[in-house]
Amino acid sequence: MPTVTLHLLFAGFGHVGRRFAALLVESRDALAALNIEPVIVGIVTRRHGGVFDVAGLDANKVAQGLAEGDALGPASVPSTLEWIARLRSQGAEARVLVETTPLDVRSGEPAIGHVRAAIAAGMHVITANKGPVAFAHRTLAAEAAAAGVSFLFEGAVMDGIPVFNLVRETLPAVRIDGFRGVVNSTTNEILTAMEKGERFDDALARMQEAGVAEADPSLDVDGWDAAAKAAALANVLLDAGTTPLAVAREGIAPTLEPRAQAALRAGRRLKLVAHGRRSASGVTTCVELQELQADDPLAIVDGQANALELDTWPTGRIVITQRDGGLEKTAYALLSDLVTVAIRIRHGAPGL
Amino acid sequence: MPTVTLHLLFAGFGHVGRRFAALLVESRDALAALNIEPVIVGIVTRRHGGVFDVAGLDANKVAQGLAEGDALGPASVPSTLEWIARLRSQGAEARVLVETTPLDVRSGEPAIGHVRAAIAAGMHVITANKGPVAFAHRTLAAEAAAAGVSFLFEGAVMDGIPVFNLVRETLPAVRIDGFRGVVNSTTNEILTAMEKGERFDDALARMQEAGVAEADPSLDVDGWDAAAKAAALANVLLDAGTTPLAVAREGIAPTLEPRAQAALRAGRRLKLVAHGRRSASGVTTCVELQELQADDPLAIVDGQANALELDTWPTGRIVITQRDGGLEKTAYALLSDLVTVAIRIRHGAPGL
Repeated sequence: MPTVTLHLLFAGFGHVGRRFAALLVESRDALAALNIEPVIVGIVTRRHGGVFDVAGLDANKVAQGLAEGDALGPASVPSTLEWIARLRSQGAEARVLVETTPLDVRSGEPAIGHVRAAIAAGMHVITANKGPVAFAHRTLAAEAAAAGVSFLFEGAVMDGIPVFNLVRETLPAVRIDGFRGVVNSTTNEILTAMEKGERFDDALARMQEAGVAEADPSLDVDGWDAAAKAAALANVLLDAGTTPLAVAREGIAPTLEPRAQAALRAGRRLKLVAHGRRSASGVTTCVELQELQADDPLAIVDGQANALELDTWPTGRIVITQRDGGLEKTAYALLSDLVTVAIRIRHGAPGL
Repeated sequence: MPTVTLHLLFAGFGHVGRRFAALLVESRDALAALNIEPVIVGIVTRRHGGVFDVAGLDANKVAQGLAEGDALGPASVPSTLEWIARLRSQGAEARVLVETTPLDVRSGEPAIGHVRAAIAAGMHVITANKGPVAFAHRTLAAEAAAAGVSFLFEGAVMDGIPVFNLVRETLPAVRIDGFRGVVNSTTNEILTAMEKGERFDDALARMQEAGVAEADPSLDVDGWDAAAKAAALANVLLDAGTTPLAVAREGIAPTLEPRAQAALRAGRRLKLVAHGRRSASGVTTCVELQELQADDPLAIVDGQANALELDTWPTGRIVITQRDGGLEKTAYALLSDLVTVAIRIRHGAPGL
């Protein structure tokens, strides 16, 4: 089995990007067993500059420097788009963009621009960013197919556990009729806290301190994050061609405290559920509050866990549950996508 | 993408085999889209004779005839092993044994013999039978690798939803440290019935009437079926090299009625749990009664649902739940295995 060498350009180097770089080192033996050799040739950030070395960077040393307050390079550095062009001119064989920049969940940018430029430059793309798949899956997938490259995003929705891979790699010839999931940790933890009598604001502050909630809390509590994930799932699993802006969206608010507690007393759980369904008139995609029976697989999801139920033919309802979610786990999704890229290159079908 | 034609020999043609044959017809378009063409060239049964036609059989017509009491062929027919040899001499390009014979769960036969003979004859094997993987996974996998053929068994444990495919295809470079699951429907339904005050014997009779329980109820209630599934999971996921005979095994009995009811009153569920774990001293594999917290993902599994939790690094605890299990669904597992065989042949890596 010939070794596949993959040259990686990181766009964004925050928690997920740094954890992915560390995971590449920790998984060195497993990757070697698969005859996959990743080489990090560039790291570009929005605020800390960028660094590039076609011979390979020690990303963990870079991460350490950043943690100690170093900049990556001169204050005025080329943009991610310029780095993509520069990498292209280097002519490395298999080039992969690792996109983990901070997302504007209302526009999908700047990630969409990065993904599009990378595909146009003949690069494969792996991303933990939900923007591109939530806003532009159909066009980006078509552009990737035309360019003969992969566009993969396993980490966009479920913090590292297989969702898109599950359907693509293990459920051939299965029809997906719908899905429903608990996919946003912040709103889920706040709902659980309110059931127990904790105040909404206290629970939210706790989530922000723990780094779970977004800095702008409206992205979580107003249902934007869940809507982006619902759009991503609907686009990939149901070919919805939708965007988060078109998803019927509910959020959570302090006024829900009595409702959450009343539901619990009645043996139910109040959950923010992202769901999508195929019907004769098209695909409907929603984020809404639902009171679930206590033994519903989505009702038992607490803390940073998340769960997704797929309604399928002929395999019925299948649920995949991540009991130990978190940003850190998302790094694994990038690793699994990287392995998929390598396997496709080996099979001579990079764009499948 | 060139079409892969697969010549199928059915060993066993009961509920699962017949449902699989029907599913091949129902999934004709989906298989055609994958450029996969299955041709059923032989069906061998233990009691109803066998039929063979290298040009292809209409298996659904055969199933209809059997349902109306026809025999497949003359009373004295060649054995499955002779049919395998006969198919070999026909020289069909890609030959697949579809093994769904009734299992002696205490020996793994006759399935192991069929699988071994097929591999030796250069045939791929897909099976919903837990015997071969529970008793002889390591040797059969080695024999298949040496022969350059696939040995796949997705339907052996979880009624059609991906378990082995999940790990193999979507969790590259992940380490599995352990598993625990509710994998036997009969014992699970009887435990649930006893919680509600139904008598053990009544519940068992109901399961047998519905065709869920084995004809010999001891295979279910004494934990043999769960032990075989635990051994299969331990062999594949933890490389345990064990057999069902070596699995520490508990079953269920009418005397559990008060315990099941007391657990429920205390907010817990009494479940028969199959589990395995890797440790410094090797792999331990057990089937035992456990009182689970009500919000445990295994506790909410009722009816014909089943669930498996994998303890993994770096992805934490992942649970896959089949909410609508049943023998019928197992047929899909055979279909997914068939697709895997075709994809491997296309990639020139049939034995991976």
